[in-house]
Amino acid sequence: MNAVILAIGDELVSGASSDTNSTYLSRELAALGIATRSVHVLRDDADAIAAEINRAAAAADFLLITGGLGPTADDLTRHGLARAMGAELVLNEPSLERIEAFFAKRGRTMRAGNRIQAMFPEAAEVLENDIGTAPGIAAVVGSARVFVLPGVPQEMRRMFKRGVVPRLPRERSAIVQRVVRCFGAGESDVAAKIDDLMERGAEPEVGITVSSGLISIRITAHAGNPEDAERRATIVAQEVKRRVGHLVIGEGSATLAAVVGSALREARQTLATAESCTGGLIGALVTEVPGASDYFLGGIVAYANDVKRAGLGVPEAVLEKHGAVSEPAATAMAEGCRQRLQSHWALSATGIAGPRGGTPDKPVGLVFVALAGPAGTRAERHVFSGDREVIRRRSARAALDLLRRALRPDTTASGDEHG
Amino acid sequence: MNAVILAIGDELVSGASSDTNSTYLSRELAALGIATRSVHVLRDDADAIAAEINRAAAAADFLLITGGLGPTADDLTRHGLARAMGAELVLNEPSLERIEAFFAKRGRTMRAGNRIQAMFPEAAEVLENDIGTAPGIAAVVGSARVFVLPGVPQEMRRMFKRGVVPRLPRERSAIVQRVVRCFGAGESDVAAKIDDLMERGAEPEVGITVSSGLISIRITAHAGNPEDAERRATIVAQEVKRRVGHLVIGEGSATLAAVVGSALREARQTLATAESCTGGLIGALVTEVPGASDYFLGGIVAYANDVKRAGLGVPEAVLEKHGAVSEPAATAMAEGCRQRLQSHWALSATGIAGPRGGTPDKPVGLVFVALAGPAGTRAERHVFSGDREVIRRRSARAALDLLRRALRPDTTASGDEHG
Repeated sequence: MNAVILAIGDELVSGASSDTNSTYLSRELAALGIATRSVHVLRDDADAIAAEINRAAAAADFLLITGGLGPTADDLTRHGLARAMGAELVLNEPSLERIEAFFAKRGRTMRAGNRIQAMFPEAAEVLENDIGTAPGIAAVVGSARVFVLPGVPQEMRRMFKRGVVPRLPRERSAIVQRVVRCFGAGESDVAAKIDDLMERGAEPEVGITVSSGLISIRITAHAGNPEDAERRATIVAQEVKRRVGHLVIGEGSATLAAVVGSALREARQTLATAESCTGGLIGALVTEVPGASDYFLGGIVAYANDVKRAGLGVPEAVLEKHGAVSEPAATAMAEGCRQRLQSHWALSATGIAGPRGGTPDKPVGLVFVALAGPAGTRAERHVFSGDREVIRRRSARAALDLLRRALRPDTTASGDEHG
Repeated sequence: MNAVILAIGDELVSGASSDTNSTYLSRELAALGIATRSVHVLRDDADAIAAEINRAAAAADFLLITGGLGPTADDLTRHGLARAMGAELVLNEPSLERIEAFFAKRGRTMRAGNRIQAMFPEAAEVLENDIGTAPGIAAVVGSARVFVLPGVPQEMRRMFKRGVVPRLPRERSAIVQRVVRCFGAGESDVAAKIDDLMERGAEPEVGITVSSGLISIRITAHAGNPEDAERRATIVAQEVKRRVGHLVIGEGSATLAAVVGSALREARQTLATAESCTGGLIGALVTEVPGASDYFLGGIVAYANDVKRAGLGVPEAVLEKHGAVSEPAATAMAEGCRQRLQSHWALSATGIAGPRGGTPDKPVGLVFVALAGPAGTRAERHVFSGDREVIRRRSARAALDLLRRALRPDTTASGDEHG
């Protein structure tokens, strides 16, 4: 079974607000075994809404519509639905009484404009709203069931759970989604390892997306019941992990910082950071994880060379001979930091984030990251592309990945593959 | 003139990711005088993409499509476009060379899968991508101009500005948008000051949005020519600024870090940071601004109390008597940092970001920020609501706002209003 979602509102189409309702609904529907086919964001225009409702009703089993149920002249979703149904809008007395009571309870008088909120297409059902004035609507268009919900996210979510879910048929096929996250190679390198699994029409479906170097492989299994879907998703997730190997950092919403944090906590070891081009971003990522104080001591942001010398003990000779953006500087930063903060591990990053400051020898995007630890220091050279923020984020993640691999001794041997 | 936007990707339709590209594009198009009619989020399905392209091309002057240009089997946007155009995909040699060069520059070999990224519908134009492997596509379907951009937001934005904007016609009825940015009060407090300007149907339109405490007031003026639109927008922007007063930090995409950075550079003064709960985030925000090395020296991330003592010289007595989350601790952190890094100014933040660690006396969200400067030290106490990341971001911004006000002596007198 499948669904189409419509989100209605001039403010959504103009970019003044983002449509977060559809993201919520498609996730909830997937959990109920209903796949979303498409999402359409439309202006407050009754004809356009009616046309899209008719088109969607011909294509999907369920149609979920949010927004445009308010009391003002630009709220036209109910008119669009009535037009699609070939029905008139008629007053529903019990709804009018509820809206009047809503205002009375708050010591206010209902405005005339709110009367429209008690009008529904003939043959439609009222979905009650106990936290706002706009009731929702349940109706049938062609062979599709249609649900219209308020645009206010809190009201929409509550009405979805209380009014829509109980009206959905009980027998559904199940959809289970698993996400395997990887780091340390390009999207196409990872895709090449699982190419055959990603073929169109394969079951489970396998897809891949990337964000600042973090790659998410989604595995979506469909089956007659949740157990079968779960089993199929797990088999493919295992196969994906086997093939992608040491690049896998975890499942679900795993981040490098969370994975590294868990490993440090388990090993009862501590971390400190010495940051130049990242300006504090590695520390900020590490401390995004709740409970980071169990293992993160702190660090030195050494943006100026004076701070690299005085705060981290980077030798003047290193800065003079190799420059602040060099492997020896990254190594000295990590080692100085580890020594001064008395941590088990220290990470450093130094590079040229741009947009200015690049030279033919040292282009924008050149970054050295280093890790000092109980068994010595290891550095890596990267050349990242992207704008300043992308280069900085990738640098911070490359540093964290150095530590992730060091904390998993079984995978460090193949670390050189991480470009 | 108007546009339709398509966002392509299974991950968008399933709710695994949100479609932020369309929000960006519709805003940018509005600024160029092009109204967006609708936004459609579609699965990676070549037939569905082709059908929607044909429908949109019949309805709008411009069609902007994002996503599905990657090298993997589920990237089918180019196939959908070719189908809509009734054209074949053919290899573009210069694009292939650029993609090969992209990999070569990074010391990697291009995979066979990336070859598809150099294939374009016959009669289509290539939009170059200088920060990623996926070139974009410009084409004509029916009477509509079609632009296909990568799904990665950074690449999409850059290609829109460099490849699409120059290809849009110059004569348009004018829409001018101005954004006034404020910090230091709640959204409803700011809205109350400009309530009458925000009425529906008013010209120019005035709208308000908020993100981690940073409030953007959008003023959109429509007129027959750019000069009139600009004039109208300016009058209202001035009025908004007059009413919102010292809360205004700047116009356009002004950030606290950029505003503070410009003021420091102008005054030839330097900044250092001492961070506890923010874990490096203040430094990361400061160094997001290109050229921050002109004024930012670095800082100490003092997450553990040992680092507060040894790295910043916070007295043991302060930590024992008042605790690490206290005004005396914030003050000592800022002063110790200023002294050790020899900067003109030093900012500190210490607080309880949660979700755990709160007590009745010191609840989650309690944060102290302090600023040490040439004329002494000033601290502020805040209680922020929101999750861990929101509390940390608001803390970092509250610290930067302390410095912003200190660098503008005309506004410091009313500093107490900033809650």
